[in-house]
Amino acid sequence: MSKLVNGKPLKVIPWEECPKGFDGPIWRYSQNPVINRHPNKVISRAFNSAVVYFNNEFVGVFRGDGLDDIPHLYVGRSKDGINFKIDEERIQFVDENGNKLPETMYQYDPRVIPLEGKFYIVWCDELCGPTIAIAETSDFKTVEKVDNPFLPYNRNGVLFPRKINGNYYMLSRPSDSGHTAFGDIFLSESKDLVYWGKNRVVAQKGYEWWCALKIGAGPVPIELDDGWLIFTHGVNRTCNGYVYSLGAMILDRDNPGKVIYRCKDLLLTPEAPYETTGFVPNVIFPTCALVDSDTGRIAIYYGAADSYTALAFTTVDRVIEYIKKNSR
Amino acid sequence: MSKLVNGKPLKVIPWEECPKGFDGPIWRYSQNPVINRHPNKVISRAFNSAVVYFNNEFVGVFRGDGLDDIPHLYVGRSKDGINFKIDEERIQFVDENGNKLPETMYQYDPRVIPLEGKFYIVWCDELCGPTIAIAETSDFKTVEKVDNPFLPYNRNGVLFPRKINGNYYMLSRPSDSGHTAFGDIFLSESKDLVYWGKNRVVAQKGYEWWCALKIGAGPVPIELDDGWLIFTHGVNRTCNGYVYSLGAMILDRDNPGKVIYRCKDLLLTPEAPYETTGFVPNVIFPTCALVDSDTGRIAIYYGAADSYTALAFTTVDRVIEYIKKNSR
Repeated sequence: MSKLVNGKPLKVIPWEECPKGFDGPIWRYSQNPVINRHPNKVISRAFNSAVVYFNNEFVGVFRGDGLDDIPHLYVGRSKDGINFKIDEERIQFVDENGNKLPETMYQYDPRVIPLEGKFYIVWCDELCGPTIAIAETSDFKTVEKVDNPFLPYNRNGVLFPRKINGNYYMLSRPSDSGHTAFGDIFLSESKDLVYWGKNRVVAQKGYEWWCALKIGAGPVPIELDDGWLIFTHGVNRTCNGYVYSLGAMILDRDNPGKVIYRCKDLLLTPEAPYETTGFVPNVIFPTCALVDSDTGRIAIYYGAADSYTALAFTTVDRVIEYIKKNSR
Repeated sequence: MSKLVNGKPLKVIPWEECPKGFDGPIWRYSQNPVINRHPNKVISRAFNSAVVYFNNEFVGVFRGDGLDDIPHLYVGRSKDGINFKIDEERIQFVDENGNKLPETMYQYDPRVIPLEGKFYIVWCDELCGPTIAIAETSDFKTVEKVDNPFLPYNRNGVLFPRKINGNYYMLSRPSDSGHTAFGDIFLSESKDLVYWGKNRVVAQKGYEWWCALKIGAGPVPIELDDGWLIFTHGVNRTCNGYVYSLGAMILDRDNPGKVIYRCKDLLLTPEAPYETTGFVPNVIFPTCALVDSDTGRIAIYYGAADSYTALAFTTVDRVIEYIKKNSR
């Protein structure tokens, strides 16, 4: 069985035991959603967001759709990882000299990656269409934007939480400028987080129908002794719209462009009312996974129906066993 | 008036004087098309191709659509730049060790860039969809493919023919996986032709209808004392399909991400029978521009109706005057 490495204890990780008799790989938090509509005066819906534990609190970056339906990014904080207070002021990005940058048209679906003592935020920004942006912060107060890593159009970028063989790596899902009807997971490499290259395909959309339209990376990869556990979103195109489910795979530890195990079955699909009904019905979109290295507990934050933030739980042993048993 | 710099004499440049009474910026070769359908046994149509003058002949890389309609790349040669003999064997790309690489599903729309004593070929290759690829050669016999510079999906990449302020630069037009209904010209920077970054928008599709759907770079940029002359393709989306015309702009010499002059009017649009009729009617697609520094003559090779290769002519003075006079 794979074992966690480079993990940290997180005694206060949100947690609820698996319901008796439930035998799936991941179970929902009974009090979902944890962030309901209108979490504050300026946000209609907060979802597809990511948190870390820092300075004795959960702090993170939230996608907040405004009253004009345009998403922007906000910092949110919580003592328990469940009850969040989200700022009403958008994140004001600055350049390397601390000067305020002009706001782009929209920003959405942030990931927060602890890397080399700082936190990197990777999200979908606007440059003639959706494109991946990066910023770094040490305190979630000053947030410095660096150069966009890739050309448009692209979404769902997530950095690995450490260098691998001396290089930074980022997963992404190149797209078009609309409701992209295709999508595969790619890997890119950088020596400095400025110039990127050696682009490789990691995982293509599947023959399995739940991910037959597209597949993309979700939370920050979780390091195991024999690989990187990643949770993904996979998309089924039905006659009445897209359905987003949660999937998982394990990538080679030294060569993260290589898939070792790919779970052929989805691990969680929209079935709860807050997942099947909302602004965009039938969406489960994982963007954050916290891990407690002492117990192997995993708390997954996911966007539900582009309307709510919800929580689901599993353990390292349970989910890895499931992935390996159901691997292609 | 802008003047050519870093140009070379090319006494044998294909040429025909401007027809009497014609007052447009660019005139067609009277014997067009120069490459007709079925130029050899394996190619149905050769177009969107690029040549250079090397070792006392015109040699270049041709897009050849096969009898299965799939395009691949072939070397072609000519003594006069007009009558070409195209190989029947596809280019066999090798890796840095000289080992043959497996052929990708398709390759199209090559540009050939003289750079630092070698020739770089930049084309649209396949990696889960269209993506830009690069190879280098010194003799058009051994052609070494290097890493793809960008993530998919992207087309119409063209390198600048020299470093600018110590960096390599490439124009490209990020796209989707189909008949992309959007497109702007972007600039990317590299120190080593492997890792790319600092991606910037150069020119967006226009309010002018001839380029209102998309705009992309064409031949290798031509250096002037006060800028880079680039020919572009601009696309109008009509009720019966796309129409591709030839446009032009001048970019800042030291900062090629900055447009100095952008011609608001097209310079050549499908009107001749071999442009308005063919496999894809109504396409003029410039991919190569040769220049004779002694006379300022320019010979533009363009794909016509995705069926033929055609030639058009202008001079540096004439085209620059037109661009400046009709600049936005």
